[in-house]
Amino acid sequence: MVDKKDKGHIENDPSFKGLSVNSGISQPPSINPKIAERLKNRKRKKYTIEEYVKGILDGNMAILSQAITLVESSKFEHQKVAQEIIERCLPYSGKSTRIGITGVPGAGKSTFIEAFGKHVTAMGHKLAVLAIDPSSERTKGSILGDKTRMEELAVDPHAYIRPSPSAGSLGGVARKTRESLILCEAAGFDTILIETVGVGQSETAVHSMVDFFLLIQIAGAGDELQGIKRGIMEMADAIAINKCDGSNITKAKLARVQFENALHLFPLSPSKWSPKVLSCSSLERTGINEIWDTIMDYCQHTQENNYFDHRRREQAKYWMYETIHEQLRDNFYHDKKIKGMIPDFESKVLSDEMSSFIAAYKLLNTYYDEVKKGE
Amino acid sequence: MVDKKDKGHIENDPSFKGLSVNSGISQPPSINPKIAERLKNRKRKKYTIEEYVKGILDGNMAILSQAITLVESSKFEHQKVAQEIIERCLPYSGKSTRIGITGVPGAGKSTFIEAFGKHVTAMGHKLAVLAIDPSSERTKGSILGDKTRMEELAVDPHAYIRPSPSAGSLGGVARKTRESLILCEAAGFDTILIETVGVGQSETAVHSMVDFFLLIQIAGAGDELQGIKRGIMEMADAIAINKCDGSNITKAKLARVQFENALHLFPLSPSKWSPKVLSCSSLERTGINEIWDTIMDYCQHTQENNYFDHRRREQAKYWMYETIHEQLRDNFYHDKKIKGMIPDFESKVLSDEMSSFIAAYKLLNTYYDEVKKGE
Repeated sequence: MVDKKDKGHIENDPSFKGLSVNSGISQPPSINPKIAERLKNRKRKKYTIEEYVKGILDGNMAILSQAITLVESSKFEHQKVAQEIIERCLPYSGKSTRIGITGVPGAGKSTFIEAFGKHVTAMGHKLAVLAIDPSSERTKGSILGDKTRMEELAVDPHAYIRPSPSAGSLGGVARKTRESLILCEAAGFDTILIETVGVGQSETAVHSMVDFFLLIQIAGAGDELQGIKRGIMEMADAIAINKCDGSNITKAKLARVQFENALHLFPLSPSKWSPKVLSCSSLERTGINEIWDTIMDYCQHTQENNYFDHRRREQAKYWMYETIHEQLRDNFYHDKKIKGMIPDFESKVLSDEMSSFIAAYKLLNTYYDEVKKGE
Repeated sequence: MVDKKDKGHIENDPSFKGLSVNSGISQPPSINPKIAERLKNRKRKKYTIEEYVKGILDGNMAILSQAITLVESSKFEHQKVAQEIIERCLPYSGKSTRIGITGVPGAGKSTFIEAFGKHVTAMGHKLAVLAIDPSSERTKGSILGDKTRMEELAVDPHAYIRPSPSAGSLGGVARKTRESLILCEAAGFDTILIETVGVGQSETAVHSMVDFFLLIQIAGAGDELQGIKRGIMEMADAIAINKCDGSNITKAKLARVQFENALHLFPLSPSKWSPKVLSCSSLERTGINEIWDTIMDYCQHTQENNYFDHRRREQAKYWMYETIHEQLRDNFYHDKKIKGMIPDFESKVLSDEMSSFIAAYKLLNTYYDEVKKGE
């Protein structure tokens, strides 16, 4: 079944204001649906924590995937096992280059990751691609869900692609991705890409777990600064101008100058690294190696001035507090009684019948009473 | 005692990168210090909630000030009274024009507020000036603490100046200011200014409680975009270029064009109002009335398209959730056992001995056990 215009694809949502994305051709079922059904109902082998950890450390992809599924699960018993696995894998993590990638829809992130990923694995690296896309639950379509857009990378034995967890709040999604990152590192992946869409606050979340932040842009009508929030440009360690091929080359060169000027406006970041502007073509696979080299330069630069380790430690601390705050909120909003009260309180606040503060305090009092009553 | 350079003034902190601020001449004690001591120790009259509310509605400044002191107190019994007062005042609030003012240190916010404030009261309005300065506790100096910089306004019977509450987190400071705003409105102030420093996240807090957001800038060396975070410029409904006097006039005109160009880069805000760039001289008191007229235009524009009310309702909702989140965090960090555990857990996370997530969960488990044990 071929759709001329796939309205269901997430990047076609009007809020993205990007180019429209045509759907790929969906695959015909590769196995008999009836057999698939039976396979699905077959009990999946349950591993012990010991087996999970050993499997991950051995680089067993199937076990890694299952462990990440536990990380992403919202069930309490799954979380308990997942946390244990993470704790045991922690000593084996931390040895990768963590790269964040963002860009507005239409900038060609998927094809860039395909080209960049192939370059990385060709050099003998092992690459894991993760994603943070808090909208994925709502739209039921994740940015990385469509593996058909990374055909070569999807079948590369040295690459592992995992779509965004689809679970509620941005904080939750981001935390799960950060936990998955640790498992991927323990499984021997030495390069981790984390993709996100350049439209929301998810960039801050990605920025808080990577060493290097790459912004993918395209040359356009001179207003390319429009599409991306200014705060995101401030976070970039490099901007790659993609689609620098064919008739686009002149425009791309112009864009490069524009971005270089724009970056000059920003104060130097604590890393003492001045962000670079590069151009590349994911289609012709040109300029990709310069991007990789820039990332390596950055790592060397920040390792020499100790910013690299400093930042990783700050990130770990950040995630401790972030997890606490997120969990406090989560517990509050998941309380049955609170859930029932919120719509009424919200509408009273909206109609000025009750002050924001009184509403908040009444809800909080109820909540703490509930916690005390709980077993 | 006259200091040539007052290092103690908050805006002279190097992190502000602004102009340096010379101190005013401190006043000699206006009353015998011994008598002052006795007056201080004299028990302040305790009002009933009834008396507080009546006093505020009558426009009694002394009672208003005392009520705000209760709002700012961190004592439980004061908070309880304060919340009751706010609830009773709520029906009388909401009728003012709420204006947020920010700008980097050195932009001349204090003198601007003096000139603007005098203009406002001269038209027969009643003006309250509040502030959000989360640094005030640390530095023991609030942006509005130094009333000597607003000499005329400080003695104007139609103006009320209240320095920033100095209490911990930004969320806490902001909430208290928002509550004070309600009391000021109930006391008959029809124009509320909320000042903050253009260096941190406090702008977002101010933005979430005002109708109109004014950014004060100065003409300078062409890099005036430097000093202010881009996100702040995006929030501005108008930019006023201050110190447009004497030899500064040409520079100010240039800056005006620059800012107008910069503002064009931003997408139109949901208010459908295109931000204006104005110039003024607080010293010569020129251009002040144009700023006031712009604010009035804005209010009319947004009242006609219903954005004004829509935004106020959204703000009320925002504060309900914000208060919940802040209080959940506050309760957590104020728990005795948690307080004792955090330094150890943080250092374990920093040294990679424990994962961020495990640390967070262990702290959370302890916390909920404590809550359940509590009476």
